Amino acid sequence: MRGQFITFEGTEGVGKSTQLANAASTLENLGVDVLVTREPGGTPMAEHIRELLLATRDEVVHETTELLLMFAARAQHLHTRILPALDAGQWVLCDRFTDATFAYQGGGRGVSQERIALLENLVQGNVRPDHVILFDAPVETGMARARRRGELDRFEQEDLEFFQRIRNTYLDRANEAPDRYHIINAARPLNQVSEEVVQLLTGLLSPTGHG
Amino acid sequence: MRGQFITFEGTEGVGKSTQLANAASTLENLGVDVLVTREPGGTPMAEHIRELLLATRDEVVHETTELLLMFAARAQHLHTRILPALDAGQWVLCDRFTDATFAYQGGGRGVSQERIALLENLVQGNVRPDHVILFDAPVETGMARARRRGELDRFEQEDLEFFQRIRNTYLDRANEAPDRYHIINAARPLNQVSEEVVQLLTGLLSPTGHG
Ligand SMILES: Nc1ncnc2c1ncn2[C@@H]1O[C@H](COP(=O)(O)OP(=O)(O)OP(=O)(O)O)[C@@H](O)[C@H]1O
Ligand SMILES: Nc1ncnc2c1ncn2[C@@H]1O[C@H](COP(=O)(O)OP(=O)(O)OP(=O)(O)O)[C@@H](O)[C@H]1O
Ligand SMILES: [Mg+2]
Ligand SMILES: [Mg+2]
Repeated sequence: MRGQFITFEGTEGVGKSTQLANAASTLENLGVDVLVTREPGGTPMAEHIRELLLATRDEVVHETTELLLMFAARAQHLHTRILPALDAGQWVLCDRFTDATFAYQGGGRGVSQERIALLENLVQGNVRPDHVILFDAPVETGMARARRRGELDRFEQEDLEFFQRIRNTYLDRANEAPDRYHIINAARPLNQVSEEVVQLLTGLLSPTGHG
Repeated sequence: MRGQFITFEGTEGVGKSTQLANAASTLENLGVDVLVTREPGGTPMAEHIRELLLATRDEVVHETTELLLMFAARAQHLHTRILPALDAGQWVLCDRFTDATFAYQGGGRGVSQERIALLENLVQGNVRPDHVILFDAPVETGMARARRRGELDRFEQEDLEFFQRIRNTYLDRANEAPDRYHIINAARPLNQVSEEVVQLLTGLLSPTGHG
């Protein structure tokens, strides 16, 4: 049976990576074969592209360059790693995916949704995540958590309004397709958030939980 | 006055780079302000993308990844370097451009012309080279010249048929738009080829030579 493709989304520092690691070990304990991966990245070549994207540099990176690099990494990741894993029955838990492009490049940088959708179709055909878990919290909450972690990358150096637009784009997308998107209040203490994520995933494991 | 955007195209080792250097110094001697550049590459970030593309690696590079990386480098190069130079009145001589994508990824690798055209429009809007100089020679002729230069990159390791398809795609494109494309027989001795290129370019300099 084809595995479930589940992505973890949200603004900086909301707890995506922490929750993904916890979710993966919960699922593994329940006997699910899990592939844990992230975007941009997920293969050696895609991780090289990630480095290009995140490096702070003197050169101004044109928004179309950024957009195409994101989708180049995604094409490599999806076709050489994610789809083969799903076909082999693995569940794929991915730290960010195309929703992040709509949120960051679209909402954040102002790239039109049409340009992004065009590349989404070119790269993915009709592949979409089966479930998107959106971790939602006030931007300041996540930023404060991320800052505690240390040095900021090229994206993390943007201002609050940039991330506010990103949060709103995520919420708009989630509200348009409530069957596939699950909004989780990530401003609460870690263990409360984890509990809700685990409940959601175990719900997907039982036959009635699908769809 | 806006400068001329002239690209140098053709299969491996036909003499593009040699002719471009010669053409640039000829034009400079005639008082033209010239920007010499190449694809993929032309800015520090685009040159990094070039390295990613040309490196031989264990990982199989998906054709969509390759295609998007090419256009990511092109977006950066076109918008941050080529267009500002043309606007400032410089002539831009570029070693390969989008015709190479149609020829290599399209003709060579079998990517559909529609996918390439879609990205061409996304990245370039309606910008196209004013003139394309196509150096045409039997594939074996160029390969023998390139091989004499030393180690082969990821593209140069492909077989003869791959380059045969590339040559044919270049010729088809040139024959469809004879006003913009100039086919030069590059199998002849270097000085004969140079002479024809210089004649062509000086023709573009005189008022009657435009279009
Ligand atoms: N609910 C929570 N309450 C308090 N701290 C949290 C919570 N969730 C995560 N953290 C802490 O916040 C920091 C950021 O968490 P994490 O790295 O998981 O976020 P992220 O969403 O993956 O961030 P990024 O967008 O930068 O990848 C970590 O130090 C983590 O331990
Ligand atoms: N007309 C010619 N006759 C003989 N040798 C030539 C001719 N033109 C170029 N060469 C030689 O062939 C080699 C390849 O030329 P060059 O590097 O200019 O080709 P290129 O088209 O830029 O190749 P590549 O596709 O690998 O970039 C060089 O050593 C060059 O001196
Ligand atoms: Mg993270
Ligand atoms: Mg060359």
